[in-house]
Amino acid sequence: MRLSELSRRSGVATATVKFYLREGLLPPGRRITATQAEYGEEHLRRLRLVRALIQVGGVSVASAREVLAALDNDSLDQNDRLGTAVWALPHGKPADPDDPATETARQRADRLLERLGWGYGPLADVTPPAYGMLVNAIATLERLGYPCAIEDLEPYARAMEQLAVNDLDLVERYGGTADEQVEAAVALTVLYEPVLLALRRLAEAEESRRRFGTH
Amino acid sequence: MRLSELSRRSGVATATVKFYLREGLLPPGRRITATQAEYGEEHLRRLRLVRALIQVGGVSVASAREVLAALDNDSLDQNDRLGTAVWALPHGKPADPDDPATETARQRADRLLERLGWGYGPLADVTPPAYGMLVNAIATLERLGYPCAIEDLEPYARAMEQLAVNDLDLVERYGGTADEQVEAAVALTVLYEPVLLALRRLAEAEESRRRFGTH
Repeated sequence: MRLSELSRRSGVATATVKFYLREGLLPPGRRITATQAEYGEEHLRRLRLVRALIQVGGVSVASAREVLAALDNDSLDQNDRLGTAVWALPHGKPADPDDPATETARQRADRLLERLGWGYGPLADVTPPAYGMLVNAIATLERLGYPCAIEDLEPYARAMEQLAVNDLDLVERYGGTADEQVEAAVALTVLYEPVLLALRRLAEAEESRRRFGTH
Repeated sequence: MRLSELSRRSGVATATVKFYLREGLLPPGRRITATQAEYGEEHLRRLRLVRALIQVGGVSVASAREVLAALDNDSLDQNDRLGTAVWALPHGKPADPDDPATETARQRADRLLERLGWGYGPLADVTPPAYGMLVNAIATLERLGYPCAIEDLEPYARAMEQLAVNDLDLVERYGGTADEQVEAAVALTVLYEPVLLALRRLAEAEESRRRFGTH
């Protein structure tokens, strides 16, 4: 397909597609004349992923390039490509190492993960950024005096454990080659985050109405 | 307690506490001399909430003021105060009404909520911003060609339904007066969001390792 069709089918403006091509986020098309190139389904798929990362994930162009490099790294297996790509997503500010709440939170996160029997994901000899994100979130709860005991946190972890099975079932149902599935897994990680947060707020409103509603 | 102790116990710098006082996010203390005021536990509690909203929730000073006004509105019951406060939180950009994917997403969100038997939360005659956030997230999935059928979305909604029960159990275990519980509910809505997203990424890494890991 031509650039105009690629733009139409992806819903991404041609100027933006050209920008992504210039920035190397999209591989060049097969040149057919001096001014025109032909793009395939793999361009469309890649373009959708780039869009998800940048528009919803708030990923910078540099980080998006890192995510894509992980996906294209043929020396990694499917699990490591997925893990490395997710690691390149933004994870918020790291926890303040000088704050005593950080050390408490770290111990609590470690005990929680031990109880869950989770490793640290694909590259177990280093800690993934999501671990730092968890420690930071627990440290904030701790510092502000809100409940964050292991018993408080565990139900959230169990729910996410079930949803992770669902996430990857969704990816496998999505079908395609191993490459396509890894791309979809990264996109769905990012794109289902606002779904989850919106549904949680709606579910809380419903539960609050049941418990506290007076009219 | 004096301002210095309020700062120490909350972990919020005195200059920041003074800024919140000036901005009306914290009620003034009881004046004891021309230059000193006395603060109570309710100031500490309020300060923790303001911190959660602004630092973790990314809430602006103006929106934080709106959240607090809802919490302090004695003409509302506990459910409406909680609902109105959560509505003042940021919910991302609204869906583009001119995009056909938005209408598809809206119909899908409605059918999903109908299937779940949820109302639209505390003020059922208007749609809460979390509904718009859900529509926008589904529209993005739809536009980019990723799975977002009702059947795909339902397990996420069911998981959030369970967690909402847990959220409010946590609030009730936290104890205190009805006012204190509503404050805690708002804070926990915001502060558990990064906990949830971090745990999801860790759970996905674990599930990916089980399914796709080769070493």
